[in-house]
Formats: sequence, C-alpha cells, structure tokens
Amino acid sequence: MGTQGKIIKCKAAVAWEPGKPLSIEEVEVAPPQAHEVRIKIVATGVCHTDLTFLNESKEKHRSSFPMVLGHEGAGIVESVGPEVSEFSPGDKVIPLLLPQCGECEYCLNPRTNFCTHNWVGIMKGTMADGTSRISCKGKQVNQFMCLASFSEYTVVADVSLAKIQEDAPLEKVCLLGCGVSTGYGAALNSASVQPGSTCAVFGLWGVGLATVMGCQAAGASRIIAVDVNKDKFPKAKVFGATDFVNPKDHDKPISQVLAEMTNGGVDFSFECIGNVEVMRAALESCRMALGTCVVVGYTEAQEIAVAPIHLLMGRTLKGTYLGGWKSVESVPKLVSDYMNKKLKLDEFVTHTLPLDKINEAFDLMTSGKSIRTVIKMAE
Amino acid sequence: MGTQGKIIKCKAAVAWEPGKPLSIEEVEVAPPQAHEVRIKIVATGVCHTDLTFLNESKEKHRSSFPMVLGHEGAGIVESVGPEVSEFSPGDKVIPLLLPQCGECEYCLNPRTNFCTHNWVGIMKGTMADGTSRISCKGKQVNQFMCLASFSEYTVVADVSLAKIQEDAPLEKVCLLGCGVSTGYGAALNSASVQPGSTCAVFGLWGVGLATVMGCQAAGASRIIAVDVNKDKFPKAKVFGATDFVNPKDHDKPISQVLAEMTNGGVDFSFECIGNVEVMRAALESCRMALGTCVVVGYTEAQEIAVAPIHLLMGRTLKGTYLGGWKSVESVPKLVSDYMNKKLKLDEFVTHTLPLDKINEAFDLMTSGKSIRTVIKMAE
Repeated sequence: MGTQGKIIKCKAAVAWEPGKPLSIEEVEVAPPQAHEVRIKIVATGVCHTDLTFLNESKEKHRSSFPMVLGHEGAGIVESVGPEVSEFSPGDKVIPLLLPQCGECEYCLNPRTNFCTHNWVGIMKGTMADGTSRISCKGKQVNQFMCLASFSEYTVVADVSLAKIQEDAPLEKVCLLGCGVSTGYGAALNSASVQPGSTCAVFGLWGVGLATVMGCQAAGASRIIAVDVNKDKFPKAKVFGATDFVNPKDHDKPISQVLAEMTNGGVDFSFECIGNVEVMRAALESCRMALGTCVVVGYTEAQEIAVAPIHLLMGRTLKGTYLGGWKSVESVPKLVSDYMNKKLKLDEFVTHTLPLDKINEAFDLMTSGKSIRTVIKMAE
Repeated sequence: MGTQGKIIKCKAAVAWEPGKPLSIEEVEVAPPQAHEVRIKIVATGVCHTDLTFLNESKEKHRSSFPMVLGHEGAGIVESVGPEVSEFSPGDKVIPLLLPQCGECEYCLNPRTNFCTHNWVGIMKGTMADGTSRISCKGKQVNQFMCLASFSEYTVVADVSLAKIQEDAPLEKVCLLGCGVSTGYGAALNSASVQPGSTCAVFGLWGVGLATVMGCQAAGASRIIAVDVNKDKFPKAKVFGATDFVNPKDHDKPISQVLAEMTNGGVDFSFECIGNVEVMRAALESCRMALGTCVVVGYTEAQEIAVAPIHLLMGRTLKGTYLGGWKSVESVPKLVSDYMNKKLKLDEFVTHTLPLDKINEAFDLMTSGKSIRTVIKMAE
C-alpha cells in the first residue's frame, strides 16, 4: 500500500529504436489516472509480434519509439485510479491487447471482438490522453499496444484488463493474453471449424500449436501440421495433430501435397507464421467450394497475392485478431478452461528466463529452439 | 417429332479460335445420349464471361476451340436420350452452367452449390464422355460450359437443366441462367447481406445491377453503386441503389471516399467487373472487424494483391459462383419469383438481336452501351 499514488521505480526492457536489442533500464511508472490500473507484472510471454514490431517497424513506426514491448503478461493489481470499479489491489489480472469497452458499435455487435476504445493510441502505444505512464531518463516511453508487459510495473486502461481467478498460475495463464487465445480462437471462432473436418496448420510456433489445439477442441477429425522444422512435430502431436508434412520432403507445391492427401484439399487452413508466400499456399491448400483459410500470423507492410479463380471457386480468405474472442469476458473463461484441464498451457512453455535475458528469449525464438519463452519477473 | 433420334442441322455462332469474331455456321447437332437432353434454344443472354473466355483464353484454352459459346440460354426440349426421366419434349427449360447431380459430396452439402459432375468436361466444353454433340464441317465443336446456347439447338446433360413453368417468357428468364442469378445470389447467399447494412457494388453491368437488386432484397438500407460511367446510375436506381459514386469525380482512392461516406467503410462490397485492381479496392472499402468483400466478376490468370493487415483487421474476402444457388432446384424458384414480380428481369434487357448479329452484341457490351443483349433465335 506504500506505493499507491506515488511513482514506482522498477526495471523494464526498453526498445530505444527499431531493429536494436532491448536494453534493461530503470524506468518510472506513474500512478494510474482515471479508468486506469497499475499492475505488478509477474510473468510475460515473449510473442513473435513483439519481435516483428521491433524489427519490421523501421520508418513506419519509428515515432512510436522508445517503447516497452510485451503484450502477453499477467500480474497483480497494485493500485487503481479514480472511477475504477471492477478492480482492487491484489486482484490477479491479464492485460489485454484488445480492449472491450462494452459501449462502442463493435462491442455491441456479437459478430466481432473488435473495440474502438483508444484505437489510435493502441497502435501508437499511448493511453487515451496521448501520453504513456512510463518514462526513462526523463523521456516518455511508449507502451506497446498500451500494455508494456516487459516492465516490472505498468499501467493499463481498465477496459483492457481481465480479472481472473485467484488460484491461476500467472506464469502459465499469461499466454492467454495473446498467443494461445489467438490460435485457439482462430480455429473455434474465426474459422468455426466443424466436427469431422480436415484442417491444415502452417507453422508450429506457439500460435500454430494453439491453433492445432483449437482444431482438436472443435472436433476436427484430421489435423495436418506443416512446418519445415521436423523437430516440432512431436510437440504438435501433443496438441492434437494427426499428420505431419514437411514441405522440404516434397518437390511439388505444398498445396498439391495436401490436395493429394485429402482428396482435393482441406476444409480449413491456418497461416500461423506471418509469411505472405505461406498465406497464399494456405489458401490454395483449401478445397474448392467450401475451404476457408484464416490468416493468423502477423506481418507488416507486405502483400498477399491470390488468384481470383481460387476465390470464385468457393474459397474464403479471412483473418483473426485475438482469435475472435471478446477480450474482457472471454479471457477469464479461458483461464477457467485451463484450470479445468480443458485446454493446455504448460506444454507451450519451453523456456523460462528472467527479464535481464529478454534478448536471449528473442534469439531462442528466431533460431526455432523455443515454442514459448516466459519471462518471470524477480519476486 | 420428326427430328427425334436424327441429327439436326441448324445455325450456330462458332468461335474458331481465341480472340477472333464469331462466325455464323451451319452445324450438326447429334441426338441426345443417355442422360442427355436436346433443346431448341429460343433466347440467350450474352454475358461478359463469354467475351472474357474468348479474348483471354489465348494459349491456356486454345485446345478447347473451336467452340460454341453462350451459357445464358432458355429453350424448349426437342427430345430426350435414354434414362432421362425428368424431362419431356415441349418442356420449357434453362440450361445450367453449374450442374446439380444430387449425389456428389458437394450436392449433399447444404453449405455449397458446387457439383463435381463432369467437372473436367465443363471446363473444357465436352460432355462426360469427352466429346461434344455439335460438329461443323466435320470437326467436333466444343460446347462452352457444356451448354453452347449460341446455337439454335444444343444438347446438355439432364443434371445441367432446370425445368421451368410453362408461362415463363424465355427471352427474359434466360438471364437467370447466369448473370442475374449470380449477382442476386452474391448478395443474398454468398455475402448474406444483413437487413439495415451498407453495401457497395463496383461495376454496373448486368451482374452488378443484379447484385444491387439482391442487396435491396436482403434489406440493405444503403446501396452505393460505383461506376466510371455515370450514364449507368439512373438504371442502378431502378434496381435499388441509394447512392452513386463515380471514382473519376474524386482525387483520392475510392476506398477512402467510401470510408468517409460510411463512417469507416461498408459492411459488404461486391466486385462485379473482373478487374483485380477493383477487387483490391472493394476489399479495402469494407469496414474493419465486420466487412465482407465478394468477388463476383470473372477474370482469367491474374492475381489480386491484398494487404494481410486488411484481413487481420477482420475483413473477409470470398467469391461466388452462380450466386451460391443450387442450380436445378433454385433456378425454377427464381423464375417463379420473377413471374410473381419479386425480382426484375425486363429492366436488364437493353438490346435484342438475332443470332446473326452476335458480334454486334459483344461490341455493344465492350462500348458500355448495353446492359444485357438478348439474342432471339429465328422462329
């Protein structure tokens, strides 16, 4: 209680500029303002999107830097600002990259999980008032997606926060802040995978494996896991994959390989890498008349090229954002599903590191050695 | 009855090779074989797809030539082959570019209107046995989409034929064989336009106007018709358009113009031209989170480039084929809807010409002077 209303000094990994390693710094985290909550981050996953944003930002997002990345955290409420009614100090929470204000046209529409609350700020990394609550060496440091979980403390909007059950292990359920929810929901919500259907999942990183798990939960009878790294296949099996294809083992296009395996193509395909060539291959791997391809992987600034005939022949191409989950209401349910062993989380975590080793976590990801690295903050 | 079982000699417009005008020839039409029906064509619409196939085929489809084009016909059964139980001489019928065999996995699936009956042959223009029923100067002449309605007589598979009510005017309902059904169904079936929604239709040819009509039938509250030819706008209003935009009147991208008109973009957009640049613009004109873009226009061999972020932000890109209608069962209902004044057909027909003037019909279309030209065969 001694910190409430005061600035907190703590450690954070600061990205001073695009394309450079993060730097561990002492930062100052301001008290929460109206409708804001200050959180002690306990653990945070390291997601591909952090790295993509850091490395692909170049000129486009340069003005967003310096920035604290991290958008897959879990923590404990330290204090709340004025007009916050849903949270109290001590609550276990997951900060959300997608708010759910409950009032905008999207929140009121059951067919989407988008929310326009502070939309521009979230893209830029600032709160609704255009500033951030974190500073370092006297400079404002923006908060990636208005979150900044690579900091021991951060401040988030109350509409971007899910209260979760007290017994949830934060170093596991943090993965529900982005990667696992995204992949799992891509199958269940965005694609609406049907029982008995055939699916192909391209890219067996965390999001891809969560997609495999979602396909299984939806009752798919065949789940083909596709990756150029054969070492990932045993892990895919744990999540429900039934078949494995390594494109390197074939001379022909992967879409042709899958068409031959499935009598014409899969019902649902998922691109979980963020590679535009793979996005095209995923669409072409769908069967005509009925196939749906969901783009799950995040990428900046490039183009997918698709042949109109593949669309005219009855294929659908769409994307997903946080797996289509309405964030505030769904994430606590997903935590509960984990606690009730309806979905797996432990199996995603291949490495646990302290905040000081955040750049090592990026290296593990880039080299394909990790599925998910969780950063555990010092007690 | 004198012709049954015999070869019929009649006139047809033959496409001897890609890119060249059609040539009026005397052709020989063989009697129908098992599960085939010979039809006296009474009238046929001239669709953009005939012209696209003729002009864009080049090397890809050269082996399909010579060919009789035409796939939007209506006529009267002259005779039936063995094992045909659903049709008798004298029946009024509409030949269908998409069969409905009722037995394949697609026919059995309520979520699609595709049918795999003679799939390869339909693409090539041959019946299931690999030959056609039309010949000219001793050469086999293929039948576009296994139909060939630019002939006074043709033979089609019984699963590619809809029996329609006796009082239907064939020179009007022929449009339900392709263009009008395609556009109307694109809105009603493929997009599932919701009541109260905002739509944009790009390209006010026959298919585009039918799409406008479908949006209106679905209860759209705002239907924005987009075309570079302002002369088409009064016609679009007849079918239900509420707003008109000529991209030539604006310096900014059309997607931005539409976003400003609609507070962020339309709920549903339709590309009804077959132009890949317009397809991209149509997708980008959809609102994030909820927008669906349906590609209706047919084109060969090109690529659409779309930005992944437009998909990740919740837009869906899909196509339509015959408007998603299960052909044999739906076309008679659409005919009935026309007879009951639930849908318009007369307003599409701007020109009526005899078969001899088929190339003139293409010219009228290319110059933008016609919406639909109907070819009426000599009595």
